[in-house]
Amino acid sequence: MLRDDIICALSTPQGIGALAIIRVSGENSHATIAPFFNSKRATKTGYESHRAYFGDFSVKEEHIDEVLITFFDEGKSFTGEESFEISCHGSPYIVQRIMECILEAGSRLADPGEYTMRAFMNGRMDLAQAEAVADLIHAENKTMHDVALRQLKGGLSSEISSFRDELVHFASMIELELDFSEEDVEFASRKQLLNMLQSLKTNVHSLLDSFKYGNAIKNGIATAILGAPNAGKSTLLNALLGEDRAIVSAIAGTTRDTIEDTFHYAGLTYRLIDTAGIRDTEDYVEKIGIKKAFEQAEKADVIFYLIDATDPEKDVENRIKYLKASAPQAIVFLCINKTDQVDTDVTLDLFQDTKHDFFPISAKSKKGLNSLLEALKEATAWTAHSSSQTIVTNARHADALRRTSLAIDKSINAVELNIPGDLLAQDLRAALDGLGEITGTISTDDLLANIFSKFCIGK
Amino acid sequence: MLRDDIICALSTPQGIGALAIIRVSGENSHATIAPFFNSKRATKTGYESHRAYFGDFSVKEEHIDEVLITFFDEGKSFTGEESFEISCHGSPYIVQRIMECILEAGSRLADPGEYTMRAFMNGRMDLAQAEAVADLIHAENKTMHDVALRQLKGGLSSEISSFRDELVHFASMIELELDFSEEDVEFASRKQLLNMLQSLKTNVHSLLDSFKYGNAIKNGIATAILGAPNAGKSTLLNALLGEDRAIVSAIAGTTRDTIEDTFHYAGLTYRLIDTAGIRDTEDYVEKIGIKKAFEQAEKADVIFYLIDATDPEKDVENRIKYLKASAPQAIVFLCINKTDQVDTDVTLDLFQDTKHDFFPISAKSKKGLNSLLEALKEATAWTAHSSSQTIVTNARHADALRRTSLAIDKSINAVELNIPGDLLAQDLRAALDGLGEITGTISTDDLLANIFSKFCIGK
Repeated sequence: MLRDDIICALSTPQGIGALAIIRVSGENSHATIAPFFNSKRATKTGYESHRAYFGDFSVKEEHIDEVLITFFDEGKSFTGEESFEISCHGSPYIVQRIMECILEAGSRLADPGEYTMRAFMNGRMDLAQAEAVADLIHAENKTMHDVALRQLKGGLSSEISSFRDELVHFASMIELELDFSEEDVEFASRKQLLNMLQSLKTNVHSLLDSFKYGNAIKNGIATAILGAPNAGKSTLLNALLGEDRAIVSAIAGTTRDTIEDTFHYAGLTYRLIDTAGIRDTEDYVEKIGIKKAFEQAEKADVIFYLIDATDPEKDVENRIKYLKASAPQAIVFLCINKTDQVDTDVTLDLFQDTKHDFFPISAKSKKGLNSLLEALKEATAWTAHSSSQTIVTNARHADALRRTSLAIDKSINAVELNIPGDLLAQDLRAALDGLGEITGTISTDDLLANIFSKFCIGK
Repeated sequence: MLRDDIICALSTPQGIGALAIIRVSGENSHATIAPFFNSKRATKTGYESHRAYFGDFSVKEEHIDEVLITFFDEGKSFTGEESFEISCHGSPYIVQRIMECILEAGSRLADPGEYTMRAFMNGRMDLAQAEAVADLIHAENKTMHDVALRQLKGGLSSEISSFRDELVHFASMIELELDFSEEDVEFASRKQLLNMLQSLKTNVHSLLDSFKYGNAIKNGIATAILGAPNAGKSTLLNALLGEDRAIVSAIAGTTRDTIEDTFHYAGLTYRLIDTAGIRDTEDYVEKIGIKKAFEQAEKADVIFYLIDATDPEKDVENRIKYLKASAPQAIVFLCINKTDQVDTDVTLDLFQDTKHDFFPISAKSKKGLNSLLEALKEATAWTAHSSSQTIVTNARHADALRRTSLAIDKSINAVELNIPGDLLAQDLRAALDGLGEITGTISTDDLLANIFSKFCIGK
């Protein structure tokens, strides 16, 4: 997997700008630049690590640009390899010409994420940290950013490593017993092993639980808008998004597809899902829409259930009961919409008997939306408590933790039933492998290729 | 105009990428970063010019990113001021947070081109060089790039300066004569002055002439496609652009507007103009199109005149004569189109009698296009000879040169007619001012604001 050739890539976004940065990394990479770069200072003193040299970049008679090149020695760079960064004018033509020169001089275009992969391969970071680099770049809000940075700084890795260390100790004792199986000795106290496994189980489960939050942080909190036709669901969606995303009309049944978009509030991202209105209908397409609406409800973290104040459903109590039964995981907000079109006090009195909290709003005039959003923020506050706790945001990590958890359960079972050491050893090894996959102690070429292919080029 | 506050801006293109660079410049600017940047090395050694320091960027408890900051001492930076560049992860969220911190610490967002303006104000480059920075960034092909880089390197400036030096010498002598006007002395030999003015006139005219090329280089060589309706003009346009830009149909008279787009060939940019077919018509809208076609022809550097081989115009000889008379400046290429649909030899024989070179092509099958493009390259080779000669590409410079040229003519006239010294001195000063405006020796706030507002922010 690790190749010792020289790679190069544009590391800043494509397009016209004041500056562009081209990164080059690999053993003896500074030789690549020598034929093109003419810097008075570099000629006088040679290249020093972490120093920026100003000079001309040219090929024979063709002068390409005035550039600033910063060199990094092996062991002191991001990749861990000898590398340098060319800062040139942000002209696509110049970037192209410089890249052509560097490529012709014997380097090749970096694959997506190859800089970070080399950093991993050279032991500059473990796999969980490397994955955090891509998360950090794509983080859209404070919470996503904080979790990614914590992971990059080794938060998750150190937790996983401490689990592994404990496990390694017992696993090696058990393996040792196997070598001396004829002596019938017990190097590892079964009682201590059981205690350790049970405490490990708790810890792994707590990390696994955090994935629910982590996923909400990374992909947004799934927020479905449900209600009868024409209750104003699309209007609410547009009001929250601040743009005309959904087609709004006064004809009941306008929205048939589910529409998804995200909005940010108080540092959190909400994935807003508009759904078809729920009613008895014979329209085939509309029926599909309603079925989809309930499917969305079943997957939602939050449900806004809208009731039209000017035309409230009669069996609203039953509908809410049904909804809560089909989507027990979701937090349901009952919103009485169009309160600007009715005598508020009288209408709200109608709902005083329900056992649910409700929010009088007007999606059209945006009245009451702030209170609703504040309540939403409170209700989803669990996602914001990330800074003090390690959060798993990566499905690959969650998957490895699930396999670890299964292996721990089997190990506990093995100890309790006093099952032979070789079978126990196998379960312990499976648990170790699960943890090792997260930090990359255990890795395969396929796994690595899959992880880094999701990066942008130049990182 | 020159402000001594601290400015900051994102200098790389907007968007997600591996890296982003934020530039900060101004007196004592390193103090701006101090509260946020924690670098082991910087703490140990202090900041050194041209050195990149790795460390954490954070505000109080909020950790924002791991960054690399390169510092530049006053007098050694692009702007000439103390400055630094923050290289952070290319995440819009991180860029925004870092900018917010730097702004709150007492800097302000840079205006477009303000870094380059400061470089000019601090004497790091003259005005013509500063303008070349923007041209360099926007250069789309080799020729545009080479001319801009030559100007940035001071090519135009040194030529203008040498003109000015000669002129300054004589102008000061004439002014001196005025001080001693009662003595009736002649410090400046009128014969030498006349020689100098005449040689200067030649040089200024030669620069002015280069503006035709310069303009073609910067804005593309205007290339109009003319011909009878349905001769295949839009098909040729699409073939050259490599995309379906113009609506092509077999109904004569499809193209009514003139369509403009650019294509690059052999390092040159051609601005391709499709026009309405030329024929006698009663259609009002089509008449306007034909009028426009001739207007385009009058402004074109190159004309492709298309003849339909399957239905050649009978009075083609007269049409070409008329065209050459109305557009004497243009190079006309006679293209016999649709040669794939006729017996080529027979058809071409029909044209052997014309006194013009012609190109048998098929715009549809792209046959013969390579020969046409090679001929086009040869015919517009004047634009490619730029590397050995100074080329004026900037309309502002051309305008200043025109005024200089007028003032020189008046000066020559004054010397020849032996007009009193004070009037001659005034004309010489006008010539000096014209030249001085190009390099910025003479400048006004309005002029500068106008020039730099066309830059991108961060440069």
